[in-house]
Amino acid sequence: MCELLGMSANVPTDICFSFTGLMQRGGRTGPHRDGWGIAFYEGRGCRTFHDPAPSADSEIAKFIHRYPIKSCNVISHIRQATHGKVCLENTHPFSRELWGRHWVFAHNGKLRGIKQRPLGFYRPVGTTDSEHAFCWMLDRIRTAFPDPPRRPQALMQLVQSLCDDLRTLGTFNLLLGDARHLYAYCTTKLSWITRRAPFGPARLCDAELEVDFAHETTPRDIVTVIATRPLTANESWNIMRPGELVVFRDGLPMR
Amino acid sequence: MCELLGMSANVPTDICFSFTGLMQRGGRTGPHRDGWGIAFYEGRGCRTFHDPAPSADSEIAKFIHRYPIKSCNVISHIRQATHGKVCLENTHPFSRELWGRHWVFAHNGKLRGIKQRPLGFYRPVGTTDSEHAFCWMLDRIRTAFPDPPRRPQALMQLVQSLCDDLRTLGTFNLLLGDARHLYAYCTTKLSWITRRAPFGPARLCDAELEVDFAHETTPRDIVTVIATRPLTANESWNIMRPGELVVFRDGLPMR
Repeated sequence: MCELLGMSANVPTDICFSFTGLMQRGGRTGPHRDGWGIAFYEGRGCRTFHDPAPSADSEIAKFIHRYPIKSCNVISHIRQATHGKVCLENTHPFSRELWGRHWVFAHNGKLRGIKQRPLGFYRPVGTTDSEHAFCWMLDRIRTAFPDPPRRPQALMQLVQSLCDDLRTLGTFNLLLGDARHLYAYCTTKLSWITRRAPFGPARLCDAELEVDFAHETTPRDIVTVIATRPLTANESWNIMRPGELVVFRDGLPMR
Repeated sequence: MCELLGMSANVPTDICFSFTGLMQRGGRTGPHRDGWGIAFYEGRGCRTFHDPAPSADSEIAKFIHRYPIKSCNVISHIRQATHGKVCLENTHPFSRELWGRHWVFAHNGKLRGIKQRPLGFYRPVGTTDSEHAFCWMLDRIRTAFPDPPRRPQALMQLVQSLCDDLRTLGTFNLLLGDARHLYAYCTTKLSWITRRAPFGPARLCDAELEVDFAHETTPRDIVTVIATRPLTANESWNIMRPGELVVFRDGLPMR
């Protein structure tokens, strides 16, 4: 299994603290030695970094650590290969353009038979089941909505039904970004926490690091972190239910 | 005007030497202060780095310099904004997927009226004339070839005719990668040089740096570097003619 990490915030925020915890799982406290990647939205733009090397030893991971990039929407993934060889093109997150927006996709799990589903416009560059599923989802979204729907709820309903469909093929824990929203879908493991004033200290499970967010934030900041397993030991995370979709915008779940 | 840099090689090669010269033009020896970007193909995968900050001061540029990434196909661009504000989504090179391959595009020049050309499938994320031209070109290629043509010459002919068409709108110096070939098209300024055994020393125009490639290479290496203006002072570069397309593969121009 892989590890997912996402962030949604109402102000550009760095993800260094959570990233430190996640990277430890890439070959040190976890078995995920088969590469990692991260995407940062910045306005309409999107910056991605990928490395097929284990994250715990990765030069690119060290760079991102030293040079914090601030973003309102982040999706990251560390991989334990179950399907497809270890190489750059098989490293999540994957991205494609739809409606002049960058879509970003990272998946934890295995989808049996997904490659038998025919694809239309988008085609995978690599050989993973995950990228095939992403291309299939975007094809379906584009077919249903050649232009972006006015109501975000219409898109949320479609994403929910596509996820429910994919779930029948196996395990499908998902983080998906459309440059505005961050969609989190759970079939087995996904948790999230929203941090806002009054901020307090947080202590990582995977590294000896504690941060007092009261010193790092302003009272108006709202930041949600989503992860496969809770990253901190002293906070109360929301554990998602199988089949549950939560859509985040500006740091908060949409209702 | 912007500066372009490309590389085509028969073995994965780092581009540090040429990159050092190019980066100086981003705010030090040149006026190109409006961001820069670079794409490295690695197998079927592609790694891109973008920074809206001037390249001469960029932390990401320093990182790439310290941590040489080896690739057989590289496209880089430093920008002096003529069209579209300075932000991540307006920073070249742009990329899109077609036929399950990453296509990468960087452009130097200005195309008047390009935005009046209707787009089909691909849509720009940012506001530059360049990204609009890229989307238009890929739409035309996809329409002509829903699947990749068997003969690379058929694709080369189409790229030549699309470039000849765009050239009527203004200045169109182009580097385009399809994960196999590197297409270089010139309307005003583009030069290239092929280095192969016996290798000798090369001295940058833009920084005090000399490299003796005889110490850095094996006798079988073939490396072509393409740049807006020659990057070295002591070598003889091929200066491209207006309307000329040269397609490189494995370090050599295709005939």
